[in-house]
Amino acid sequence: MNTILAQFRIIPGKEAEAEEAMKTMAASVESKESGARTYIFHRNLKDPLAVSVWEIYADDAASAAHRATEYMAAFRTYFGPLFDPETVKIERLERIAGFSR
Amino acid sequence: MNTILAQFRIIPGKEAEAEEAMKTMAASVESKESGARTYIFHRNLKDPLAVSVWEIYADDAASAAHRATEYMAAFRTYFGPLFDPETVKIERLERIAGFSR
Repeated sequence: MNTILAQFRIIPGKEAEAEEAMKTMAASVESKESGARTYIFHRNLKDPLAVSVWEIYADDAASAAHRATEYMAAFRTYFGPLFDPETVKIERLERIAGFSR
Repeated sequence: MNTILAQFRIIPGKEAEAEEAMKTMAASVESKESGARTYIFHRNLKDPLAVSVWEIYADDAASAAHRATEYMAAFRTYFGPLFDPETVKIERLERIAGFSR
C-alpha cells in the first residue's frame, strides 16, 4: 500500500472552476486506475480554499502509473490558474495502525 | 460523514512508546466504535516523527462519541510525554469528490 496526503490551496475566486477540475480528475482516476483504492478531494470546513487529497494506491507501480496519466498532466496545468503552486505539500505516508471498514 | 485529519509530532526518543499508544488507541476505536469507519495512524516516510491520523465517522454523533471515550481521555494524557502538544493541528474536512473501494 502506498498512501499520499497532498495539500494545496485554491486561488481565491476560482472555487467553482477548481471544484469542477477536481471532480473531473477524481472521475478519471476512478474509471481508469484499478490500482487506485482511495482518491478523495476535501476542503477544510473552516478554511474552504484549503484542499486535502487522500490517496491510497495498491503499490508503488500503481502510484507511478497515476502520476504518468494524461489527465494528471492536464491537472498539473491548473497549478497557477486555479491552485496556488506555492502552497503544495505532498507527504508520503506509512501506516502505523488502524482500519477502514 | 464526518472526516478529520489530525496531525502532530512524536517527541524525539519516544517513538516506540508512541507507536504502542497509537496501536492501543486504534484497537480500542476499532472494537468499541461502530460509528468509526476509518481510523488510521500514519508516519511521514521522510519525517518519521510527523504523525497524520485519518478519521472518518458515520456522522457528528459518532465523532462526538469518539471524543468522549475513556481511551480518548487516556490518549490525551500522552500529549506532553509522548507527543508534542505545540504541534497539534486538527482539520475538519468535507468531501468534494472521489471514492474509496
